[in-house]
Amino acid sequence: MEIPSKHLQQAVDAINTLPGIGKKTALRLALNLLRRKPEEVQHFAQSIADMKEHVKFCSQCGNLSDGDLCAICIHPKRDQSLICVVEDIRDVLAIESTQQYRGLYHVLGGIISPMDGIGPSNLNMASLVDRCANEDIKEVILALNSTMEGDTTSFYIFRKLSGLEVTISTLARGVSIGDEIQYADEITLGRSLMHRTPFEQTMSR
Amino acid sequence: MEIPSKHLQQAVDAINTLPGIGKKTALRLALNLLRRKPEEVQHFAQSIADMKEHVKFCSQCGNLSDGDLCAICIHPKRDQSLICVVEDIRDVLAIESTQQYRGLYHVLGGIISPMDGIGPSNLNMASLVDRCANEDIKEVILALNSTMEGDTTSFYIFRKLSGLEVTISTLARGVSIGDEIQYADEITLGRSLMHRTPFEQTMSR
Repeated sequence: MEIPSKHLQQAVDAINTLPGIGKKTALRLALNLLRRKPEEVQHFAQSIADMKEHVKFCSQCGNLSDGDLCAICIHPKRDQSLICVVEDIRDVLAIESTQQYRGLYHVLGGIISPMDGIGPSNLNMASLVDRCANEDIKEVILALNSTMEGDTTSFYIFRKLSGLEVTISTLARGVSIGDEIQYADEITLGRSLMHRTPFEQTMSR
Repeated sequence: MEIPSKHLQQAVDAINTLPGIGKKTALRLALNLLRRKPEEVQHFAQSIADMKEHVKFCSQCGNLSDGDLCAICIHPKRDQSLICVVEDIRDVLAIESTQQYRGLYHVLGGIISPMDGIGPSNLNMASLVDRCANEDIKEVILALNSTMEGDTTSFYIFRKLSGLEVTISTLARGVSIGDEIQYADEITLGRSLMHRTPFEQTMSR
């Protein structure tokens, strides 16, 4: 399929570089933009350029920020002695949307994955150790995915922090609320039996 | 889910306006762009702005073009007496990719759809009648989708051109090549029986 305009071709090629967007979808999106008013398309392109230019990362936790420190790190009511370690900014957003967590974060920016050539030095890892060593941190919660790479990363952090006076915990694993027990996979069900919770605690909210 | 940076929020909102891209996908795409090199993101935004600024529409047929007339209209080997009427630029690309058609096109830019408030005056319709009346056009092929709106539009064009010395034809409808006959819908199968083709003709290519 040959596109009869090189300018459209360039836009389609650019949109095609986005993850999960193929050539046909890219063309559909480009033609949608082409049908809009000029100022609307200008605004579209400008807001993407602005994002890259202005969005910063928090120098303390690696979260997104418009300034040097992010809104969570400078929030006066946040528990400064509690750090939740996550892989990605989207995990911060997911945990924030639960409204259950009042501590700080530490965004690694990825996980240890030898297959992709990502080691601890490629991640925001050294600053986590610094924070735990130099600040008054009581607990570190490891909130990484329970994949091979996630578990490796959790174990690496556990080892790195084991000399310090910090409690290290991890997310509870178990059968999701609303899931049927008969369809739960055996590892999850086994884990939720092993770490069963006193019934009174489930009534606290 | 509250995004902690207003610049990122603006980019996500812009990407979210694209058809078929929801809030979560928009965030995923924006974060992907955010991880790239600044010059790469600059190029991305620029190629979209350039597209809107430079892409023109052919003054004769409404196809995409980098100049006043599109590459198909000015091609010396194209049959200038044959016009294929399509709804959208993507239909031109689809028909071109068959390499079976050597005539010209006429892109309506939509179809008659009273539900969406689109009438003949909103479409590139008057210029089609002009072309047929003033140029030496022998045949007009109606290549519109066989929906209620497509059929209405085809019929409207048929009526508009009926006074002129132009043959009006439409795409053959029938069972797709590769489809199983037992699964064909009854209208398609009925139509393909009604317009059955002499067997020798199917051997011509």
